[in-house]
Amino acid sequence: MGQELTGNLLVAQSGGPTPVINASLAGVITEALQYEDNIVEIYGGLNGIQGILNEQLIDLAAESQQTVRALNHTPGAALGTCRYKMKKQQDFDRVLDVFAAHDIRYFLYIGGNDSQDTAAKINALAIERGYDLRVIGVPKTIDNDLPVTDHCPGYGSVIKHIATTVREMSLDNAAMGQHDFVSILEVMGRNAGWIAAGSVLAKRRNFQLEDAPHIVLLPEERFNQQAFVDAVQNVLRKQKHCFVVASEGLLDADGNFLGADASRPDAFGHAVLGGVGEYLRTVVEENLAGVKARSAKLGISQRAASHNGSLADVEEAFLAGKAAVQAAVAGETGKMVVLVREERENKDQYAVTTDLAPLEEIANNVKPFPASWIGEDKMSVGFQFTKYAQPLIQGELPLSYENGLPKYAQLSAERIERKLDAYDTSK
Amino acid sequence: MGQELTGNLLVAQSGGPTPVINASLAGVITEALQYEDNIVEIYGGLNGIQGILNEQLIDLAAESQQTVRALNHTPGAALGTCRYKMKKQQDFDRVLDVFAAHDIRYFLYIGGNDSQDTAAKINALAIERGYDLRVIGVPKTIDNDLPVTDHCPGYGSVIKHIATTVREMSLDNAAMGQHDFVSILEVMGRNAGWIAAGSVLAKRRNFQLEDAPHIVLLPEERFNQQAFVDAVQNVLRKQKHCFVVASEGLLDADGNFLGADASRPDAFGHAVLGGVGEYLRTVVEENLAGVKARSAKLGISQRAASHNGSLADVEEAFLAGKAAVQAAVAGETGKMVVLVREERENKDQYAVTTDLAPLEEIANNVKPFPASWIGEDKMSVGFQFTKYAQPLIQGELPLSYENGLPKYAQLSAERIERKLDAYDTSK
Repeated sequence: MGQELTGNLLVAQSGGPTPVINASLAGVITEALQYEDNIVEIYGGLNGIQGILNEQLIDLAAESQQTVRALNHTPGAALGTCRYKMKKQQDFDRVLDVFAAHDIRYFLYIGGNDSQDTAAKINALAIERGYDLRVIGVPKTIDNDLPVTDHCPGYGSVIKHIATTVREMSLDNAAMGQHDFVSILEVMGRNAGWIAAGSVLAKRRNFQLEDAPHIVLLPEERFNQQAFVDAVQNVLRKQKHCFVVASEGLLDADGNFLGADASRPDAFGHAVLGGVGEYLRTVVEENLAGVKARSAKLGISQRAASHNGSLADVEEAFLAGKAAVQAAVAGETGKMVVLVREERENKDQYAVTTDLAPLEEIANNVKPFPASWIGEDKMSVGFQFTKYAQPLIQGELPLSYENGLPKYAQLSAERIERKLDAYDTSK
Repeated sequence: MGQELTGNLLVAQSGGPTPVINASLAGVITEALQYEDNIVEIYGGLNGIQGILNEQLIDLAAESQQTVRALNHTPGAALGTCRYKMKKQQDFDRVLDVFAAHDIRYFLYIGGNDSQDTAAKINALAIERGYDLRVIGVPKTIDNDLPVTDHCPGYGSVIKHIATTVREMSLDNAAMGQHDFVSILEVMGRNAGWIAAGSVLAKRRNFQLEDAPHIVLLPEERFNQQAFVDAVQNVLRKQKHCFVVASEGLLDADGNFLGADASRPDAFGHAVLGGVGEYLRTVVEENLAGVKARSAKLGISQRAASHNGSLADVEEAFLAGKAAVQAAVAGETGKMVVLVREERENKDQYAVTTDLAPLEEIANNVKPFPASWIGEDKMSVGFQFTKYAQPLIQGELPLSYENGLPKYAQLSAERIERKLDAYDTSK
């Protein structure tokens, strides 16, 4: 238990949105209201660290209870996020200036690897300067590739939607009947195959070979065209259609992204991906005479499909937000909340608690998909994965609809008055 | 009222599946059970006309009540469909042979334009041969392009899912904040812009310019690259992101499909479409410096998303199935059920009844998207469309879930014994 600290709390969101990043925000707001003695004001920073640099803060305590509740099933990121990479010392100094100007003593950052790296550096600088600050990270990434934590909030909802989509598409494929048909679904996952692997939950029971998906291509295994073509042919010998799920991060034998546009790296230097599905469609049609293939690419919709979110995921995202506030108030800093799967006597029972891990341990590390969970054919995943992932997609959040569409939260976003001069992030 | 006719009923499904083609099947089965004096057995033909030629019939009365109820929210086509085009007289003769062998006196065909053409020809041949048969079509197409009927079962669910997806993706786009970003969603619609137009229901209120989608490209208007680039730029001047919905059937100035692979026509001679989204992404990035674009393509998932279906659509699809049985028993033949929008004094009230239209009037005709509903900029649709389409997406069907995923119906499909020699459709 650290010393008592009284001041304002600032929460911000960073990186790509997830279906439940706003549920974590709701958890933070709800819990922060419980600590009146420590937390005076609850501020939100717009567009992650970039908005903080620009002193764009809003008053989250002013939001209605209804809005906070609706955050649990609202896609996007209600505060806005950024992919701005802080590099200059000047940026870090500015963050602490903004914090000091607004008496920010609790900083909660909801984000993935890069974001927790930023949080770690802010924490280190605050310690160096003797500025009393508690920095706690809240895990967030659909990629499920943060280390230490059993899994990441956002992942369960994304694979629930992808598995639903595979099951629905495969019913359509099966209906079309008579001809050799290959359906290819390209999903996200730049470095790790967690998302593509999640598609196997579409199988009715574990390892029903006849159920889609029949082939799952993970970025952990280099693409072998001949083996792939053979595998498709093998499936088509037994089934009328073949369902392939491919990760956007698939690499060829030389380690280049399949169908990627390497000429346009993003702000973090990652290559822009996106063409795997169409690439594989061409491979199938050019190598298997008379076989028809079609590809689909859910794109951003797969990480925004809150209408089909996992209740377990929403609840854990909320829990992680709450736990971050509790940890900060208890005196912790420089840590990220992690999810811990409880061992139960009844092994079918699933329960999660939270713990903390040092931000440095999280920052810029990637948790690979376990090699032992990949099938010998290198195009399937084993029962260990199914056992791991199935609890993460359980339950459905009741949605409110308006005029035929899900009703999503929108913050009223009351601005906090600026206290500093403007800051130019481009300098 | 025609003469009393007693015999067996055969129902089949044809063409591309829709989220509610099985709801029409449920309507047929449910209603057929009410006419014991006329309808002796209720058969399903597997894989449309192709299964009928091959005498692949199943006993639908043997299916459980639970299964029939679950058909209302099951994607795909439970009986299977086909795209087989009957051309030879021999095929038509064979259909009547199969009908005679199994005493089929009621033939209900759930399908789109091509399918109703087939139904019309079977009806004409039966009359010519003096074989007492009642043929009634049940409308089905996500394309919403059948003539006479106010709209087509399947359409409402597809645009509900697309509008939901646009709203969700645009929340994600908005969250990403600071930079010029263009999101492109490619949707189905080969000849008519009904599906792409449906995306405008994502706007919170009619014609909120700031709401996605900002640009809607229909196949009715030839693609004008300069006008498109200007429009994107115009949106990006006012909004941080621009959302474009594009129909797969988009044509260039010369009348060629944008991004299509014309070298591989399907069984009906239609070109295989699919590259519009990526094409437009390239156009944006090559013509607007510093602007980032991403495309997504829902592909087959958009017509299989029964987990997000429209209750109004499900109910009307069921109603159309019921009405087809009623019409056939009442002595009608050579007609298709059409949906009629009732004029109500309170114009906000929406109600639908059914009527009949001659199959010939339906067959091979296409209902174009009304030119007067397209905006002057040729990249938007007017309030007349919103007024027309909004009632079609209302309501949500309660789904049952199993192990985290929607639970869909699977027919037990008890086969009817063959009575004829095998038939070779390839000859």
